[in-house]
Amino acid sequence: MATDHREDLLFTGKMEFCRLRSLTRLCRFLILVGCLLDSSYSFNLDNWFMNPSLLTSARGKLLTMKLKSSRRPLSLDYTTNQYMQTLDHFTFRPDGYRTFPQRYLVNKTYWGGPQNNSPIFVCLGNEEDIITQLPYFGIMTEHAADFRALIVFIEHRYYGTSMPFGSQDESYANASTLGYYSASQALADYAIVITDLKKNLSADDCPVVVFGGSYGGMLAAWLRLKYPHITIGALASSSPILYFEDMTPHDAYDRVVTKDFRDASDICYRRIKESWAEMEKVASQPGGLQKLAKLFNTCQSLSSWTDLFYWIYPALQVSAQYNFAEVKAICRVINSQARGTDILTRLAAGAEYANEGLGCLNLSTTLSGWDWQTCSEMVIPLAPNANTTMFPSAPFDLKSYFSGCFKTYGVLPRPYWITTEFGGHNIKRVLKRFGSNIIFSNGLRDPYSSGGVLKNISDSIVAITAKEGVHCEDIRSSTNDDPNWLKEQRQKEINIIRKWIIDYKMSM
Amino acid sequence: MATDHREDLLFTGKMEFCRLRSLTRLCRFLILVGCLLDSSYSFNLDNWFMNPSLLTSARGKLLTMKLKSSRRPLSLDYTTNQYMQTLDHFTFRPDGYRTFPQRYLVNKTYWGGPQNNSPIFVCLGNEEDIITQLPYFGIMTEHAADFRALIVFIEHRYYGTSMPFGSQDESYANASTLGYYSASQALADYAIVITDLKKNLSADDCPVVVFGGSYGGMLAAWLRLKYPHITIGALASSSPILYFEDMTPHDAYDRVVTKDFRDASDICYRRIKESWAEMEKVASQPGGLQKLAKLFNTCQSLSSWTDLFYWIYPALQVSAQYNFAEVKAICRVINSQARGTDILTRLAAGAEYANEGLGCLNLSTTLSGWDWQTCSEMVIPLAPNANTTMFPSAPFDLKSYFSGCFKTYGVLPRPYWITTEFGGHNIKRVLKRFGSNIIFSNGLRDPYSSGGVLKNISDSIVAITAKEGVHCEDIRSSTNDDPNWLKEQRQKEINIIRKWIIDYKMSM
Repeated sequence: MATDHREDLLFTGKMEFCRLRSLTRLCRFLILVGCLLDSSYSFNLDNWFMNPSLLTSARGKLLTMKLKSSRRPLSLDYTTNQYMQTLDHFTFRPDGYRTFPQRYLVNKTYWGGPQNNSPIFVCLGNEEDIITQLPYFGIMTEHAADFRALIVFIEHRYYGTSMPFGSQDESYANASTLGYYSASQALADYAIVITDLKKNLSADDCPVVVFGGSYGGMLAAWLRLKYPHITIGALASSSPILYFEDMTPHDAYDRVVTKDFRDASDICYRRIKESWAEMEKVASQPGGLQKLAKLFNTCQSLSSWTDLFYWIYPALQVSAQYNFAEVKAICRVINSQARGTDILTRLAAGAEYANEGLGCLNLSTTLSGWDWQTCSEMVIPLAPNANTTMFPSAPFDLKSYFSGCFKTYGVLPRPYWITTEFGGHNIKRVLKRFGSNIIFSNGLRDPYSSGGVLKNISDSIVAITAKEGVHCEDIRSSTNDDPNWLKEQRQKEINIIRKWIIDYKMSM
Repeated sequence: MATDHREDLLFTGKMEFCRLRSLTRLCRFLILVGCLLDSSYSFNLDNWFMNPSLLTSARGKLLTMKLKSSRRPLSLDYTTNQYMQTLDHFTFRPDGYRTFPQRYLVNKTYWGGPQNNSPIFVCLGNEEDIITQLPYFGIMTEHAADFRALIVFIEHRYYGTSMPFGSQDESYANASTLGYYSASQALADYAIVITDLKKNLSADDCPVVVFGGSYGGMLAAWLRLKYPHITIGALASSSPILYFEDMTPHDAYDRVVTKDFRDASDICYRRIKESWAEMEKVASQPGGLQKLAKLFNTCQSLSSWTDLFYWIYPALQVSAQYNFAEVKAICRVINSQARGTDILTRLAAGAEYANEGLGCLNLSTTLSGWDWQTCSEMVIPLAPNANTTMFPSAPFDLKSYFSGCFKTYGVLPRPYWITTEFGGHNIKRVLKRFGSNIIFSNGLRDPYSSGGVLKNISDSIVAITAKEGVHCEDIRSSTNDDPNWLKEQRQKEINIIRKWIIDYKMSM
């Protein structure tokens, strides 16, 4: 274990999720945890620190979710637009008056127009270039013709071309420039762009339904709650709005990961669970780290066995989050090695499979926008527990988390801000007779469903769950191979959205 | 008419309201309008500009609203507390992490404590030192014993001792320091202080009801809408949340002022209405301004007759806003002058009465916090019309308004921000099935009632109006002389609040 890492690496509980990066790399995921080593496979925080700058983006090609040829073709007739967005909506300091071009895409192919008060379907971009998100909101685009809906995609500030300070480098330069990146600012951006767009189209009375997945799903739910005059309803897919503070047990995410692997193969689950102690044991031997690096074919040398762990851990998490078939495939590889193969060789084969033929396991990472957000407001305490999951214990430690964030960005997170601004505690009691028209959808194989709303809150704030579903599966483009439960889940959602629009028109 | 005023004076439609400054100066009010002079008693914007810095605070003692001895005594057992508040809740820039002591007062005399989930009544301070507001929330404090409620008053940032940058001078220095003064920041302040207070008192489950009047009433309604997890209900007294953009006719306020005067005395109304042309005529004569200054006993010399007008205009508005008896008294003075007394001498007598024995009419003013807010987000287009009111026409001109604000503060107002952030358009349709537990109370003699919610929106977002009521009358301390309609209005409100608390406890 290298000591020179310890000084600047002090970080716990951090993640990114639902990344729709490209056609061949649908979603990425990452968790950083400060971990506690003990004899029963838990990390020792005193002896081990992690550099967030090395660990905050996905390693290798974790998951491929190819668009199948059977998916319905979508009209690509989008116009690209820019709204000169105000940098800071909530203060009136001269600095905040700066504007930047926020990108949004509009597809009028199916729209019935303002004279019919035809609906407007808006995808609230999440932490990604909006162009890459375009193909992944099938539930919104596939039904646009039926609803005669206008289709709009709005890019989240600090992504794609929507950079507040010119270039990405300048926008991400430091906390002074990144500071304007927050959920509240993004929600105000969306409210303003939608209002402006409706005005330009003389579509003031057209009902707006917003769609979002993962972080974007949180934004969709919050936009409906905070801006009921902007959107008549929201489909919030896989949005873990309850994974803050202690509302959800910290190990809940990894318990679902573990269950997914156990459901795929109990022996696989046990092999993974046992491998960490073995990995640590090998690493502690002379030449052990080199041996591990060779066995797992890492692109970089190892300074600790945890360097390796933090490639494999998120790879397994992402497979559970996005693709249960992938979980089964990884387990098949682990289990199908020749009889007598040792446990680390099995795990290495699983890792190689998860790396999707990209060669050596690339341990290097770069900081992302989501990393900033986890160090400002999105403090999601996510930590494995050796007793309840197949991973070593790594309790969430706010002090270490704070320290890591401060070293990286020079500012501290505000871990209680999200629940103060958006609520979450006692959500059923609070929203039972407040608000309306939100669908919280979750697939229960998605580890983030553990922090989602899984029960109806009221007649019109409802939970739709799919036992076999994974992260954001319901909002993706459909295929001819979709199972019935998925078709049914989508149909339920569409029926509810249709009712919102009918109710709205009746209220006019 | 002095030409040297024209350069730097360019301003339209601006006001402050419901100022509870002291026991002897209850409420103040001011409107600044760029006005259009023409032959039928309307100002000519091309020839006349006004210096906001000279006209933005009340002139003289406009209204006395003494606490009558018959008012119920209130426990003064308040503890003074400070919460180290974050300067900027919505960005994560290092500058915004600065903290300042936000003052709040707590009275535990009547509280039933957390074990009974006894309620917490919170007054959301408006644009004034919180100490001066203490005696004016009788509806909240007088019923505290009955409800076994904790009483809390929270000071609005930038008032009293809650100065973000040390002293008032530093805090109000320029747009860079004033920029953090906004309704959104204030609402987040309140949410945070309430959350912290409940935590300190182990009172997490105690229901919070918020009270506010005028601008504070807007904040109360918006807090309930935006932070349903913080407050179970809001009494928003005299909160003109619909007096933005074109939701309310710009002359609506002055139409109510005019009606109040006409109801008091038709001849008085006509005398006031006719006086402006006479005043302008006298001013245009050689030595006319000196004659006017002498007649009206102004402390300063006049550079235009409008200098005088802008003392009398808000004085008449304030009397209508806060005290119909004062309207009648002013009219009595105007009308009771000896037969044959000329119209300006009558008006001067009325002005002298309105000045409450303070001697000469003091035309000088200083900028207030509310002035900043009208030049940032609170763009309330309030403008008299000679055809519909007893004042000269002065159309609201956004361009002049912008120019005046920019010259004063170096930043421009965002006139569409309030409705984007808080809604307002189609409020019935938007909130019919969204939100709950808000009382919008109004007295219809209050000119601001014209921009208030006067009809029920839903079963639990209700309007309570009193035909004879004035600004914030329902929330004031009661007296033995209160008319029945006022007692009934208050009782209605209390009954609704009681129901909120019962419903809340049943939902636990």
